[in-house]
Amino acid sequence: MRSAGGDGRPGRLARVRARMAALGIDALLVTHLPNVRYLTGMRASAAAALIDGAGILLITDARYITAARTLAEEAGAGLGLAVIEIQKSYDQSICDVVRRRGLAHVGVEAEHVSLARWQWLRDSLRDEVTLVSTAGLVETERMVKDAAECERLRRAGRLLAGVVPVALQLTGAGRTEREVAADIERALATAGFEDRAFETIVASGPRSALPHARPGSRRLTAGDLVVLDFGGVYGGYCVDLTRTASVGEPGEMSLRMHAAVLASQTAAIAAVRPGVQASAVDAAARGVLREHGLAEAFQHGTGHGLGLEVHEAPRIAQAARLQRPGADVVLEAGMVITVEPGVYVPNAGGVRIEDDVLVTAGGCEMLTEAPRALAVC
Amino acid sequence: MRSAGGDGRPGRLARVRARMAALGIDALLVTHLPNVRYLTGMRASAAAALIDGAGILLITDARYITAARTLAEEAGAGLGLAVIEIQKSYDQSICDVVRRRGLAHVGVEAEHVSLARWQWLRDSLRDEVTLVSTAGLVETERMVKDAAECERLRRAGRLLAGVVPVALQLTGAGRTEREVAADIERALATAGFEDRAFETIVASGPRSALPHARPGSRRLTAGDLVVLDFGGVYGGYCVDLTRTASVGEPGEMSLRMHAAVLASQTAAIAAVRPGVQASAVDAAARGVLREHGLAEAFQHGTGHGLGLEVHEAPRIAQAARLQRPGADVVLEAGMVITVEPGVYVPNAGGVRIEDDVLVTAGGCEMLTEAPRALAVC
Repeated sequence: MRSAGGDGRPGRLARVRARMAALGIDALLVTHLPNVRYLTGMRASAAAALIDGAGILLITDARYITAARTLAEEAGAGLGLAVIEIQKSYDQSICDVVRRRGLAHVGVEAEHVSLARWQWLRDSLRDEVTLVSTAGLVETERMVKDAAECERLRRAGRLLAGVVPVALQLTGAGRTEREVAADIERALATAGFEDRAFETIVASGPRSALPHARPGSRRLTAGDLVVLDFGGVYGGYCVDLTRTASVGEPGEMSLRMHAAVLASQTAAIAAVRPGVQASAVDAAARGVLREHGLAEAFQHGTGHGLGLEVHEAPRIAQAARLQRPGADVVLEAGMVITVEPGVYVPNAGGVRIEDDVLVTAGGCEMLTEAPRALAVC
Repeated sequence: MRSAGGDGRPGRLARVRARMAALGIDALLVTHLPNVRYLTGMRASAAAALIDGAGILLITDARYITAARTLAEEAGAGLGLAVIEIQKSYDQSICDVVRRRGLAHVGVEAEHVSLARWQWLRDSLRDEVTLVSTAGLVETERMVKDAAECERLRRAGRLLAGVVPVALQLTGAGRTEREVAADIERALATAGFEDRAFETIVASGPRSALPHARPGSRRLTAGDLVVLDFGGVYGGYCVDLTRTASVGEPGEMSLRMHAAVLASQTAAIAAVRPGVQASAVDAAARGVLREHGLAEAFQHGTGHGLGLEVHEAPRIAQAARLQRPGADVVLEAGMVITVEPGVYVPNAGGVRIEDDVLVTAGGCEMLTEAPRALAVC
């Protein structure tokens, strides 16, 4: 885990600059908003940043310009943060500043720049600037959280764990999935989250067998398994948790599925430590389900990174699904990931249990400590 | 407005095919999820569609495959909808099917395909297939709603209007912005919306002067203006509404600003009819604010299209901001747009009033009929 004083931004910028140097680019155009926020602190629905040797330029429009200028003032000289208000369009202003600064090799974030934008920038800058396709320069940096980020995620995890008993209390026969979901989101706000991290999942009965069901008008019924998957944003950082409940006394099948998933999650969490590949954590989860004859019922990955986005690197999945270079990340202290195995039996039901853990020197720290037993609602 | 029976999809597909033919492409790879949904009916967090002369192929993964197959069965032969489950990855499966079908010129949605994805597809298909950059083929089609879509948006608008008195009742001195926002979102669910359309804005006092403020911990205080901007999703379609309230008796400045914005919105709505350019509606709104000496205080556009996305074409803005070819759309019956002028005076406060209208042969129909007077909470 990285130590960092109150402001981790200068260090982040220095490390991204080192990656830029290795690629031979003299500037990086950052257009992915979570990356802009990570480097500048700016939270906006539209913004871009340009990093070069001299500093970092935050480009935004009239709606956000006051907030951006305040950020720049507060950041002080250490960050080298300057602000530009766009005139005609973002892309035009980006071209203007690239030209004005005499930049020759400018990296773009290939996973976040649309083909249309790339074509426009390339055509506009054609004779003067070489645009270079880059991938993951900032995301790779974001995987390892600094001390301040860990503290925020710890706090967020505790808040989310506190919502678990409330959510279970909201779950009961006769209520619709949508009602329960709306009440859980209200409980997230009450707990102190600034927003939900994603649309809450409440999937009941046969719908619990759909890993990505959206809450609907189905009423919870005795005998149902109910998957409750919810998360919140706290200080910009996302946490994410799943519990599965039984409406009324669970049948034997429900108990068996839940026990298998709990054992699977426990094994996966036990596998988390620095030096281990993401796919090894997935293999630990999958192995236990295989022993229970449920390997086929677990169709998604075991987890994902958490931070400024609710899904970010690293992905915790089967090695066969992580074949692109660098995708099967070796875990390091300071990474924060979900561990969320599940089993889904069509027409019967599903179980998923999900917690968030911080990789530490000795293994991992549970951020969302809350009872995991099959709750009866 | 287009007439359509229960299923508008075959007509949509035929019209998109006509646009494809005009570009000389024999297939279109649709990767923007709202476009996939529009053409196939599939709502998923990951999917793609490939349109060629023979039919439309829905490409999705294990999580959604049951839902996709059900859709295809229900659609019947008329739509020519077939389903492919991805194996290794979306992009690999797309390449496989493009090759298998012997397609030569395949359009991609340039505004929605990342540079990284484009490069990967292009490199994989290099010798066999020409990828063609296209823009807005499906979005242009989506602008004009058919009868079933209009009916859904009407219903959604009525539901949203019904939330207005509830929202005003939730707004009161001593409550935090975040509490009010959470309660409004709960009220949206109670009203029958399947989800919020965007993160609810509750911006009070000086924060009401920030057009895109996120709800925070500030407590509403006597004398505040409070901007309440919220929306819901109903049957997949988004509606969006803003009212401004005063906490306690409004001061003269608040009354003056509100009266100006109300007059501006009224003028803009009166300007909406087929044959009028989007920028003319904006000019109507802006002209009234200019007469009130508030032109400088209105820094954003007057509105946007509504449908499967809460922001879609057409944009209603100043002509100078709509210079790309085709951006200054000529309104047609069946388009649904917001009309939402606002004024924002730094450190003092802001007012915005927003309603949704359906362009009709004779002018427009208000979808969100609810009192617009400055409410005192």
